Amino acid sequence: MRGRGPAMAEEAAVRAQADAVRRLKQDKADPDEIAKEVAKLLEMKAQLGEDEGKHKFVLKTPKGTRDYGPKQMAIRERAFNAIISCFKRHGAEVIDTPVFELKDFDIAGQFDPMIPDAECLKIVHEILSDLQLGDFIIKVNDRRILDGMFAVCGVPDSKFRTICSSVDKLDKVPWEEVRSEMVGEKGLSPEAADRIGEYVQLHGGLDLIERLLQDPKLSQNKLAKEGLGDMKLLFEYLTLFGITEKISFDLSLARGLDYYTGVIFEAVLLHQENEHVEEAVSVGSVAGGGRYDGLVGMFDPKGRKVPCVGVSIGIERIFSILEQRLEASEEKIRTTETQVLVASAQKKLLEERLKLISELWDGGIKAEMLYKKNPKLLNQLQYCEDTGIPLVAIVGEQELKDGVVKLRIVATREEINVRRESLVEEIRIRTSQC
Amino acid sequence: MRGRGPAMAEEAAVRAQADAVRRLKQDKADPDEIAKEVAKLLEMKAQLGEDEGKHKFVLKTPKGTRDYGPKQMAIRERAFNAIISCFKRHGAEVIDTPVFELKDFDIAGQFDPMIPDAECLKIVHEILSDLQLGDFIIKVNDRRILDGMFAVCGVPDSKFRTICSSVDKLDKVPWEEVRSEMVGEKGLSPEAADRIGEYVQLHGGLDLIERLLQDPKLSQNKLAKEGLGDMKLLFEYLTLFGITEKISFDLSLARGLDYYTGVIFEAVLLHQENEHVEEAVSVGSVAGGGRYDGLVGMFDPKGRKVPCVGVSIGIERIFSILEQRLEASEEKIRTTETQVLVASAQKKLLEERLKLISELWDGGIKAEMLYKKNPKLLNQLQYCEDTGIPLVAIVGEQELKDGVVKLRIVATREEINVRRESLVEEIRIRTSQC
Repeated sequence: MRGRGPAMAEEAAVRAQADAVRRLKQDKADPDEIAKEVAKLLEMKAQLGEDEGKHKFVLKTPKGTRDYGPKQMAIRERAFNAIISCFKRHGAEVIDTPVFELKDFDIAGQFDPMIPDAECLKIVHEILSDLQLGDFIIKVNDRRILDGMFAVCGVPDSKFRTICSSVDKLDKVPWEEVRSEMVGEKGLSPEAADRIGEYVQLHGGLDLIERLLQDPKLSQNKLAKEGLGDMKLLFEYLTLFGITEKISFDLSLARGLDYYTGVIFEAVLLHQENEHVEEAVSVGSVAGGGRYDGLVGMFDPKGRKVPCVGVSIGIERIFSILEQRLEASEEKIRTTETQVLVASAQKKLLEERLKLISELWDGGIKAEMLYKKNPKLLNQLQYCEDTGIPLVAIVGEQELKDGVVKLRIVATREEINVRRESLVEEIRIRTSQC
Repeated sequence: MRGRGPAMAEEAAVRAQADAVRRLKQDKADPDEIAKEVAKLLEMKAQLGEDEGKHKFVLKTPKGTRDYGPKQMAIRERAFNAIISCFKRHGAEVIDTPVFELKDFDIAGQFDPMIPDAECLKIVHEILSDLQLGDFIIKVNDRRILDGMFAVCGVPDSKFRTICSSVDKLDKVPWEEVRSEMVGEKGLSPEAADRIGEYVQLHGGLDLIERLLQDPKLSQNKLAKEGLGDMKLLFEYLTLFGITEKISFDLSLARGLDYYTGVIFEAVLLHQENEHVEEAVSVGSVAGGGRYDGLVGMFDPKGRKVPCVGVSIGIERIFSILEQRLEASEEKIRTTETQVLVASAQKKLLEERLKLISELWDGGIKAEMLYKKNPKLLNQLQYCEDTGIPLVAIVGEQELKDGVVKLRIVATREEINVRRESLVEEIRIRTSQC
């Protein structure tokens, strides 16, 4: 039993952390002080957690998420939930949070080309739309198209990778620089470089794919033709998903090519409508992925190639964008989900508040009350204003006689009497949008 | 861009892990082999994750949760959600998942005695009830009662702690052994030991509290009286919460006393109705907590004592109980939450399936489809049987003509035509219980 001590102390340390931060903030201490204080406490917390943490709901906090306050945690949770519910919407199963797997890819060939690939792009599209990160574009390309392109442009096989890494820079530096790197540093012939230049500056949709399928050089290359054929199929599926306006087939996209075997994609945020954010967070890549059929095969006892396509989301990047935006917008961020505060109009009603809040909790309602015996009604209403609780359930002698509860809508200050037995349902309905 | 490689490879490794395990299982390899394979993959995964993991939704898996499969993850998620939603129901805010803080305890004295303490017990009661872990009891005591008891029994102050740790053993060993430890090893007088014995073997409810308040010795001790008075208050509040039948005021409960300053409590599971489980998991403590007003004060610049009461849940213990039970019960555990499979009755309907599933995803429905161009209807229905998907939305030429979708309830094999525009709502209603 005494073994419990540490984990509880750990919990205490966490509360202490919140408490110290709050107090230091009140004292207008400089942020470094706060940071130091928090670090100290978390260190202690971590140590205390060592032995018993494993058995506790209160666990050692993972690196990287250590020093976040309730506000940031609320933002993070909101974003996390949006992403997780998107994965679940697509039938993903949790392999090991936060890693999900869509129904797999058991015996190779159990699926037809580009259907899962299209779903991965749909997932990225859904997540970025749900998170309202601002305008975005998902660049798509295919390793086979790149390899084919290099071949028909006269790049020697031995130079594929290094030339590819030059192309990869095109989202940051202008073509001229990339070209001189290819020719100057990497010894590619100027003719080959210019041919590449004609291709890698192209981007578009089905129309571009059709055009390249007619391209005298590319159409003669088996790999390129295969890749372009699949790219066309992909865009047909994306059209059915209604998301093509956010997808750009971009021949300069060349990510981790040693790794991918087919389609590759990358989602980038376009200019933020909000300058505050733009200053603070450099607009850029927030998600990426592609097909890597080979890799999983590596682990196959029988050496089979297991088809595999993956998405990965730049969650830390997304968090910081959301945090910056919310700071800029000065929107009040709730750190709890409390639907209703159970309040009393007169003194000596603590027992009645306890009875009512217990009914609400058992009815699945998120409810709070002040821990005071006889709190002033004004203080109770003020608490709702401060914490953003949308409803107040007020018990008073008259209401108790009449078997009703006065429900106050904080925003409008409107008050209605609700029969006690239908209070849970009433609260549920009125907060269903939250 | 190429920096992306590692994290994606990490993701691949995770898929590979699942894949390798699956395949090895098919090959009936012994579990050690699987474990080794998984360990190898996870090691690689961990390494690959090092540099980029922080920026990815796909993160290095925390120790302790590494080698869980989707089934276990599903069980864990279920339990985790039950606990988290309970905390949220009580207005807790996330300090640092999985650490929550109820609205705090800002200026000392902002609350009246035992109200938050009662809520903590209500929280434990709700969580253990929701999780259906079987019958349980929550033991409650108070440090002040213990200290007062030791005093009136004639235990010298210097021996409080060591005698307390002997009392703490009473849930495992009989009183006789504890007594001989007190007298033999710890040099307590037999008379004092016998007096302690009369108290620590008592447990009950309000009646016992009342009796002890009349106890000639205890009633003369300031600390004991204070503790008993608050314990009475606590039980009055717990009566209003309607949970007293699961609460036992137990004078032998003495956890981490150097640490707690007031109420202490501990929840223990009673005999499991299911022997399989009983064999496998030793019945015992699954949650605990108490008041530790001093501790947080340690961190207070002005040295104030900040009132603090904490709950901590033995989540690993709870997980293993749930896992054991589900194995024993042979209940089929779903690893996804998919509500409906979008299927087709005839060939050449891939585009129609893609259009429909996209509508469902955009409507917030969790939907899957087979990645085959022309899957057999029987295979599609079989997939639902295997994975536990409750509904099938079937598109066929006739349905498309009529602007309807055939909705099949897998369990009953009943089939109804639903107008396409009301399909999302129909699915939502039919799966609202899930």
